Amino acid sequence: MSFLYKSEPVRGARWAELFAARAPEIDFHIWPAIGNPEQVRYLAAWQPPENIAETFPNLELVFSVGAGVDQFDISQIPEHVPVVRMIESGLVAGMVEFATLAVLAAHRDWLTYAAQQREGLWKPLQVRTADTRRVGVLGMGTLGTAVLEKLRDFGFRCAGWSRSEHSLPGIECYAGEQGLEDFLARSDILVCLLPLTGETRGILSQKLFRQMPQGAVLINLGRGDHLVEADLLDALYRDRLSAAILDVCSVEPLPKSHPFWRHPRILLTPHVASMTQPDTSAEAVLDNLRRHKDGLPLVGLVDRARGY
Amino acid sequence: MSFLYKSEPVRGARWAELFAARAPEIDFHIWPAIGNPEQVRYLAAWQPPENIAETFPNLELVFSVGAGVDQFDISQIPEHVPVVRMIESGLVAGMVEFATLAVLAAHRDWLTYAAQQREGLWKPLQVRTADTRRVGVLGMGTLGTAVLEKLRDFGFRCAGWSRSEHSLPGIECYAGEQGLEDFLARSDILVCLLPLTGETRGILSQKLFRQMPQGAVLINLGRGDHLVEADLLDALYRDRLSAAILDVCSVEPLPKSHPFWRHPRILLTPHVASMTQPDTSAEAVLDNLRRHKDGLPLVGLVDRARGY
Repeated sequence: MSFLYKSEPVRGARWAELFAARAPEIDFHIWPAIGNPEQVRYLAAWQPPENIAETFPNLELVFSVGAGVDQFDISQIPEHVPVVRMIESGLVAGMVEFATLAVLAAHRDWLTYAAQQREGLWKPLQVRTADTRRVGVLGMGTLGTAVLEKLRDFGFRCAGWSRSEHSLPGIECYAGEQGLEDFLARSDILVCLLPLTGETRGILSQKLFRQMPQGAVLINLGRGDHLVEADLLDALYRDRLSAAILDVCSVEPLPKSHPFWRHPRILLTPHVASMTQPDTSAEAVLDNLRRHKDGLPLVGLVDRARGY
Repeated sequence: MSFLYKSEPVRGARWAELFAARAPEIDFHIWPAIGNPEQVRYLAAWQPPENIAETFPNLELVFSVGAGVDQFDISQIPEHVPVVRMIESGLVAGMVEFATLAVLAAHRDWLTYAAQQREGLWKPLQVRTADTRRVGVLGMGTLGTAVLEKLRDFGFRCAGWSRSEHSLPGIECYAGEQGLEDFLARSDILVCLLPLTGETRGILSQKLFRQMPQGAVLINLGRGDHLVEADLLDALYRDRLSAAILDVCSVEPLPKSHPFWRHPRILLTPHVASMTQPDTSAEAVLDNLRRHKDGLPLVGLVDRARGY
């Protein structure tokens, strides 16, 4: 019985140590050293290998090493094999940090001050209090919920939007298509933490920007393909949006010639909002292996119809 | 009996409204319309007027509208008149936001990513967890304490340093000259929130930077004169410090020709980390007036010998 890991090797080495200590009955292999493919019961990957069904006939469980599975071609994974997204405390904590950083930067006018620094201009703006700022988070899964709870503690007026109904103390919760319009109309700072699916691809578009307050700030920490990039440039040009903070792009690495690099009102980071942390993610995987063995529900099980 | 306000007029107009509603027995005057100077019992100012003792013979109490009194020539205020610093929830909340923003920006490598964006370079760095980062706050007054409590909740390893002994759950507390060396040696990110006094002027100097870990980040949210500016430039040049976030400078507005403006590893904001907020500061002043009347201790009373 073996576990095959196909992703970032430094984290893989740490997982190997933790598996040896905590689940010595499982042979741990790091791609491309797959061992006997018939022995592979569990696979963890950012992108699974090709011909997965033929190569690993006894596969029981597939783990994404990321919070999403949009990078998977899920149709290549046999129907009877459950696919699990990564829900682990290190990844959540990193996203809470980064979303807080980005929202505070928008709230405290850091993009304006960065432009003023480039111009040698010392021009204080009035400091607004958090309770005058309406923050909206698209997506109320594990990440969105944790982010909302942290932002609420700073005194922001917080709302969340999700496909299905949610409830969270101190947060205005909106759901479904009919809730989206009201949610957008009250969001001065919008954070995207949605899963990427057929329904959410391109959701950050001209149509959505038009429904937001004039001068709102967009923060995309989801996937590059949530955003229609040309529509963002247009919305900034027309001052419909005042600024954007983007951690993800449609093409990564972002091509040298892309206009986002030099845009004075776009702050770019290279897909580093959060990362799956070696120790806590190994714990999360080991926990799901125990649950699988005991017939308990898996944490982060992907609904293939929903796409996440 | 009148209250004379000499500071930013928008806030002054709001104080006038709140005083009219909450303390109608006090005539509220906004400088330069001082009314009868003999009637002036209370004065609130960023910088008090000249000849204060002669002009206002019945003065009972002086308020600073800022968190510090270093901008006062306190020797001009009669010995028997208590001087009170501004301790109010809006000012504290703003500082907690800004310090959190600056520490998260340092922790999540935003100065490096800003430089990479200018160069069109997409180069993710490893995401470090908060528990691997040692944050130190110089100053454990109302502001420093509130900042430390917020940073602790993100999982940073937090320490505070103060002139006198303090104790705060989950925070390593250092005190006095003998504690400073150990405190500095363990601070990867250093936040200055000290009062400006004869003892703290120029404390952020070559001598201090040499005691910090190589590559540490300096965040100055105190006063410009805490920092020896030439020593910071030297420490950055020698990579003793990796970056600095400065909200205050020795000369404000910072002169156009100053090297801080164009330094790729200095992030500058124009003294906006926090501001005294109209409503909450009026409440704080009204509360101190009640305390004064009832003979209770004043909140934020300045010790003239200590200088804050």
